[in-house]
This record gives sequence, C-alpha cells and structure tokens, in this order.
Amino acid sequence: MSKEQRAQVDAMLRQPRPEGPQSVEAIRAGFKALMAQMIVPDSIHTTQTTLGDRPALHVEPDNGPRAGTILYFHGGSWVFGSPETALSLTGHLVAKTGFGAYSLDYRLAPEHPFPAAIEDTLSAYRALLDSGEDPSTIAFAGDSAGGGLTVTTCLAARDAGLPLPAAIVTFSPGLDATRTGKSMDTKEGIDPILTRKSVEHTGAMYLAGQDPHQPMLSPAVLADLTGFPPMLIQVGTNEILLDDSTRLAARARAAGVDVILDITADVPHVFQSFAGILDEADEALDRAALFLSQRIRAGGTAHTSAG
Amino acid sequence: MSKEQRAQVDAMLRQPRPEGPQSVEAIRAGFKALMAQMIVPDSIHTTQTTLGDRPALHVEPDNGPRAGTILYFHGGSWVFGSPETALSLTGHLVAKTGFGAYSLDYRLAPEHPFPAAIEDTLSAYRALLDSGEDPSTIAFAGDSAGGGLTVTTCLAARDAGLPLPAAIVTFSPGLDATRTGKSMDTKEGIDPILTRKSVEHTGAMYLAGQDPHQPMLSPAVLADLTGFPPMLIQVGTNEILLDDSTRLAARARAAGVDVILDITADVPHVFQSFAGILDEADEALDRAALFLSQRIRAGGTAHTSAG
Repeated sequence: MSKEQRAQVDAMLRQPRPEGPQSVEAIRAGFKALMAQMIVPDSIHTTQTTLGDRPALHVEPDNGPRAGTILYFHGGSWVFGSPETALSLTGHLVAKTGFGAYSLDYRLAPEHPFPAAIEDTLSAYRALLDSGEDPSTIAFAGDSAGGGLTVTTCLAARDAGLPLPAAIVTFSPGLDATRTGKSMDTKEGIDPILTRKSVEHTGAMYLAGQDPHQPMLSPAVLADLTGFPPMLIQVGTNEILLDDSTRLAARARAAGVDVILDITADVPHVFQSFAGILDEADEALDRAALFLSQRIRAGGTAHTSAG
Repeated sequence: MSKEQRAQVDAMLRQPRPEGPQSVEAIRAGFKALMAQMIVPDSIHTTQTTLGDRPALHVEPDNGPRAGTILYFHGGSWVFGSPETALSLTGHLVAKTGFGAYSLDYRLAPEHPFPAAIEDTLSAYRALLDSGEDPSTIAFAGDSAGGGLTVTTCLAARDAGLPLPAAIVTFSPGLDATRTGKSMDTKEGIDPILTRKSVEHTGAMYLAGQDPHQPMLSPAVLADLTGFPPMLIQVGTNEILLDDSTRLAARARAAGVDVILDITADVPHVFQSFAGILDEADEALDRAALFLSQRIRAGGTAHTSAG
C-alpha cells in the first residue's frame, strides 16, 4: 500500500473511542458508522428478502447474475453488524464474480446467544437447497464472526446430513472462543481494531456461560474438517485473530482439505473492507473472486472427497 | 479431479522403475522421457540464449510479451532436468500471464555441487538487472529443486546487496537438506514420486559432504526471510516435501512477508506439470498467473518492507 493509503486507513480506524466497555447499542451504532464509510461498487443492486427464518439482503450484479450463489455471513463479533455493514465486501464479491449473493441477517447476541446464529445460517442454507439450488453452485463466505460462521455452518450441515457447499471463503475469521492463539498476545497493541478485552467482552455475550471447548465455538482448536470443501482463508498480520486462521489451515491440511492460507502483511482485521481505498484489499478480493469462480461451476457436481 | 484424470496421472507416474539407486545418466534420461509427455501450450515460442554465465531458454508469448519477466528455475533435485523438462510449467505461466520468461540451465550436481547452482541463478538475476530490467518487474519462479532456488537466490541477492524481485512463485519446493520435515515420514509411500531414499541419494550429490545446516541448503529451517517479496507457495498433500512448504510459509509469516500457502489435496509433487490433463493443475496455474500479474506491474517500484 502507498503511504497515502495507509494514512487514510489509519485515520478511518483510529478515531477516538470511549474508555472501557461500551453498551451494546453504542457498539452497534459505532460499527454502523465506521462501515458506512466503505465503498460499495456501483454495479450491483440489492433487494430485501427472507431466507429460511430470517431477513436477508439479496445482492445481484446489474448485468445479470451467473449461475451460482454466495451465502454471505457478516462480521460483528456475533453481537453487531448486519448485511448492510458488510455490503462493501459482499458487493465487491458479487461485482467481481458475477454470482448473486444472499447476505443473512442472523440473530445476534446478547439477545440471542450461541447457537442462535448457527441455527439461522443453517436454516438459510437449507432454504437454498430446498429451493432447488445445487450445492455445487453454492459457496459460503463471511468475515470475522461471519467468517467463523462459514466454518461452523459447514460443520452443522455435515452433522445434519446435508450435502456441503462447493467452497468456503473466509476473511479474518473468528474461530476460537478459548482464545488460545499465540497472536492473541503477540499482536495485542499491533491490532488497531481488536483487543483481548474487546473480544472477550462481546464473546461473553455470545457464549452466555456456555463451555467454549466445543467445535461449534472453537473450530480452529477442536473441529474435524474431514470432507470439507476447498477453503480460502485470508488474514492480515496485524490481527490478534491471526492464529485462528493459521490453526484452521493446519487442521484443514491434516484433514485432506484443499486450503489456501493467504496472508497479507501489515494490514488490519478484514482489510478487504477497504476495497477501493487500499490496493491490498482489491487484490485480495480479486484472488477470492478467482477462487470462487474456479469452485462454483454451473453443471458441476457436489463436493465429495474424490473431488 | 475426475476419476479419468486421476487414472491418467497415475499411469504416467507409476511406470516400472529399476530397483535400487540409478546412475545419474539413467535418472536424467528417465526424467527427460517423463517430462516429454507433458503438454506445452501452443501459444508460446522459445529461443536459446544466455543469461549471466549460463545458457537459458527465452520463452515468450506469441502475441507479444507484456512488460515483466519471469526468471524460471527448473526442478530435478539439483542433479537432473533442464529448461526443456520444465517447459510445460514455464510455458503455461507465460501463456497465462503474457510475461516473458528466462528458464536457466544452471549447473548440476554431481559434476557441480552446492553452491554452483546458486552462483548461476544469482548471476542470471544480476544480468537481468544489468540489462536495465527494473526489479519490480521481475519474479522468480521454479519447481522442486528450482523452487528451492527461488528462495536461496533471493537470499543470495539480499546478501549481495541487490534489490529483490517483485515476487516469488514456488511449486513443491525443496527447502530442507536436513530432511527433518514430518512429512518426510508421514507421506512416505503416499508420495508416488519421491522417497526419503531417492532424495537422499540425489541430495548427497548436491551436498558433496557439506553441512546441510545452513540457510542456503535448508531455508525452511534456517533462513531469515526478512524483507522478502510476496511469495506464493503451491504444494500437494501427497508429497514427502509438504512440510518444506508449510515451514517456509510459517517463517515468511513470522518475518512479516506476504505469503500464500496454496495446498491442493491428493495431488503429487509438482502436480502443475499436468496442465491440460488435470483440472487442479490448470486451476493452480491460473492462481499463480493472477498472483504474478498482481505483483509485476509496469512502472512499479522495487519491493520494500513498506510495500
């Protein structure tokens, strides 16, 4: 990135914040204001719909979608965020691939703790399948907490005996409620967005006293990824969540899953949000788009271990 | 891959081999015959030239090259292989990117053990720079032993005070003469091409009694990669050399280097050679081409830690 780009990103991120834990309402409002600064591509349009049991934003390219669907899960620590706050990310993926996307408005903590979010994302996936979509033309994508949901929803689908999607794309996923990654400490203070204190504050709302030592809460530590579709994991090095990604990639490799661990140095959590501002963001999204295009194929067959 | 593709690849690889270590001449002839079966794209042309102190094959796209040069290092355990045996790989990279490539005929062991190969690759890089090429438009690429040379040549360039290239693309690199990767044992028998015995046989020719515990021979274990350009590492899971790649990626990450570790399950060593036969090969080369196009930019500036 150029010095100018870096300064612009830093200015967007390093705004004054109140001391101490914020209220849920304040966190939600602050995140909405931050993400409203992100660039949404012109060449898409959105419509409100429902998918399964929840509202969803249907995002389509203006020039007509290719066959294939991205099921997108927004970020926000399972406490804040919405399809609108992730629209830059979802919109760029749609614009770059030509696939349509559904961005799901899953239930949030603390009103709806674990496993409410996963119930909603699984219900949405089941609704897509029930509508006649071939799983070989569906990919899960998401960022941060939503990146975690790409993995846990796939686990839940496998547990439910459903066919798995064709691919997973995950940006800076949150995958460890036990918070045991080394980067939780080594990147503290380097990460301009998250701190151990902040993720434990919101994480406690999602956990609501439940044991974090289970695959659906800490897949980077505990999940068996056998049979998973190809995964693209993108993450920056200025993140306390870096080792959530590196450990998931190692687990995927050990389970015989195609996995691309795509690390960009010196960029923050979900740096792809800065598409149109930061070169690294656009380039990473171009790589994600190629990966999705390689994995989602009209007329393809569902993922199996024999490929 | 389809069952038909897998069967075709297996048939090409699992030809009868003589028991016990072969002579150098037999190894060279056998590899030449194997690689002659690979598909070279129609849309390139080659000319014999020299680069630095050595012969090189200049590979260009028929429709005229874009500004940018791939300096390619062929595989063959530092004992066998040539620019011709790697022409499928080099040719597909050229065809897919539009960049020209020089594939270097570096000196081989046992006639010329370590560090002869690195002297030749560094000399070739220096010749490119002396000819006026901007390092920001040069990428190193290579497979197997040549994949190792992409890394050690970059180390040698840094030691010599030269500016570094814009990117490194490495396919199934050999990066550890100490042979301490876990995959050396866990993938023995799964790897249809290499065995510990075979790599130690040829490795001894390259070592010629020298200590393997040095960064230029075992960069996955010992090299400091600080300041390196962005790296794309592609490797299959059916490889005893898998952990050469995983350990290099971890070292790159720790050194603050952009690094993509791109793992394809159930494919053999340098599976990209099977382009035109195996879907995974073409798809991996498409990802490598996008990476090279993102990193090699006409009018760009040399890689620095500030990007």
